[in-house]
Amino acid sequence: MNMNQQVILEKRPSGRVTVDCFRLIESPIPSLVEDEVLIANHWLSLDPYMRGRISGEKSYAQGVQPGELMVGGTIGQVVESRSEHLKPGDWVLGATGWQTYAVEKAKKLIKLDPTPNVPLTAYLGVAGMPGITAWVGLMTICEPKAGETVVVDAASGAVGSVVGQLAKEIGCRVVGIAGGPDKCKYVVDELGFDACIDHRSADFSRQLDEALPAGIDCVFENVGGAIFEQLLVRMNTFGRIALCGMISEIDGTPHTFQSLRAVLVNRLKLQGFIVSDHLKQWPEIRTQLLQRVANGKIKYRETVTNGLENAPAALVGLFYGKNFGKQLVKLR
Amino acid sequence: MNMNQQVILEKRPSGRVTVDCFRLIESPIPSLVEDEVLIANHWLSLDPYMRGRISGEKSYAQGVQPGELMVGGTIGQVVESRSEHLKPGDWVLGATGWQTYAVEKAKKLIKLDPTPNVPLTAYLGVAGMPGITAWVGLMTICEPKAGETVVVDAASGAVGSVVGQLAKEIGCRVVGIAGGPDKCKYVVDELGFDACIDHRSADFSRQLDEALPAGIDCVFENVGGAIFEQLLVRMNTFGRIALCGMISEIDGTPHTFQSLRAVLVNRLKLQGFIVSDHLKQWPEIRTQLLQRVANGKIKYRETVTNGLENAPAALVGLFYGKNFGKQLVKLR
Repeated sequence: MNMNQQVILEKRPSGRVTVDCFRLIESPIPSLVEDEVLIANHWLSLDPYMRGRISGEKSYAQGVQPGELMVGGTIGQVVESRSEHLKPGDWVLGATGWQTYAVEKAKKLIKLDPTPNVPLTAYLGVAGMPGITAWVGLMTICEPKAGETVVVDAASGAVGSVVGQLAKEIGCRVVGIAGGPDKCKYVVDELGFDACIDHRSADFSRQLDEALPAGIDCVFENVGGAIFEQLLVRMNTFGRIALCGMISEIDGTPHTFQSLRAVLVNRLKLQGFIVSDHLKQWPEIRTQLLQRVANGKIKYRETVTNGLENAPAALVGLFYGKNFGKQLVKLR
Repeated sequence: MNMNQQVILEKRPSGRVTVDCFRLIESPIPSLVEDEVLIANHWLSLDPYMRGRISGEKSYAQGVQPGELMVGGTIGQVVESRSEHLKPGDWVLGATGWQTYAVEKAKKLIKLDPTPNVPLTAYLGVAGMPGITAWVGLMTICEPKAGETVVVDAASGAVGSVVGQLAKEIGCRVVGIAGGPDKCKYVVDELGFDACIDHRSADFSRQLDEALPAGIDCVFENVGGAIFEQLLVRMNTFGRIALCGMISEIDGTPHTFQSLRAVLVNRLKLQGFIVSDHLKQWPEIRTQLLQRVANGKIKYRETVTNGLENAPAALVGLFYGKNFGKQLVKLR
């Protein structure tokens, strides 16, 4: 019998996340009970929210305890089934964690029917949780109108890239912020943003001013910290900010904001959201995103790391901007 | 002929506002042109928003330039009219500024019909701009539901006192924050709040915890700064914050916020607003408030300063919490 490979949280990070916070273990695959299936996982999704799960602090979801399996979205193929809803060979999307095999109740899985021009991995990225996150924040909090200016940071990432392309479809001026000239070039040349500013540039603030002749109406905020503050002070009256992430505070040093007065003076709306609060909308949004992926209206890029044993290093890379687009781990 | 007395902005404050920022002058009363009336002002309203008007910084409204008449809401009696809509003896509400007489276009004035059990001054406070501010922020941004916990600071003031009483009417637990034991006693004993914490107490934070066993669902924020940050970290999931004022930053030293992450983790909505953005709703809201004043459901308190020459000192007092309830100046 095959053994299962799993990555557990070995210890919580203190400050910077390092690969020795994780440990690869082997364990026997449990046998199935009624309504369960055994899945051979092929793809693991790595995402910024995982930082919150491994810190001991209060966050929006139950944390992973040291010794426990790391959480994560997965795509795999059913190899054994005790459910009438799934049969061996079916492809399924689930949240089965960092492991090569998973035993899961069938009702917790989504069966993936082949869609022309849509690779399976899209269900973990552009048309998966990150893409749906982009849709929810942009459409329900920012609500941009044609002609308005939308800014999104981490613009080449799995979420940011979808935010910008959706905003372009609406008819907005879209300015991205990304780390480094290669990502910025991709954001403008491939994704079609109107501009993209490298936040590592010495003259970041001046470049922002140039790219924002009419200020900012909507911000989709993934990064937080000093970058967010630079956007906050450039907001127009009645601007909207969807607060999706604050990855810049990843090492536990909160930025101190001096410009909150802008929220009052410009009557801004700043709203935090988590995509899992909007589960009812997921099927419809997924359908919308899949259409745009299939017809090429939404483009995306993936970084694929091979082997579960390399997932910890890939996650650390994701936290510090080493990835380019959606970060995946190919498990077999 | 009577001369007009006016208070002009003499110079902008640098840091703390002082009475020598203002100057009392005398000037002739201009003659009327068609559609104008001459008003003998009886009441001048002093309000925190005036701090923004006299600073040179960008704010939500046109500032007062040095040498110009101070802006302000007034109630007066028409003494001469060249409008068919108003006649001598009519009481009118307007924004005619810090002066004993005013010449104004009739269409910019609201004629006040006597309402039983409602004194004229209510139109400057509890059923005027401050009361309407309370209604707009609470009802359109906080949207509290029965059983939720609402916190309002500057709780004994013209705005805060109405916020809390409206929230009690909805069925909320209402906790006020005010400066000093007398104001706190009034807020609980007279206004009917469930609790009121003196922000000057050495154990303010512990008292807050005790008064908020179920956290905070809605904040109506008048003060900003360190008090606001203490509330921010106590917000429940999906909490709403109506940002109405940041009077604690009055002397130009912005508080640095460390807890903005709470907006993300708890999916909060933080929204700034200005009551003048909601002018269409004013008549209906005023009617609602007047009913509650007339039948005693909303109580209020006024601090009356006599004489225009004492208005600058009264305004400085308002900025630093010396008033108790709505601050008015009796002009004759």
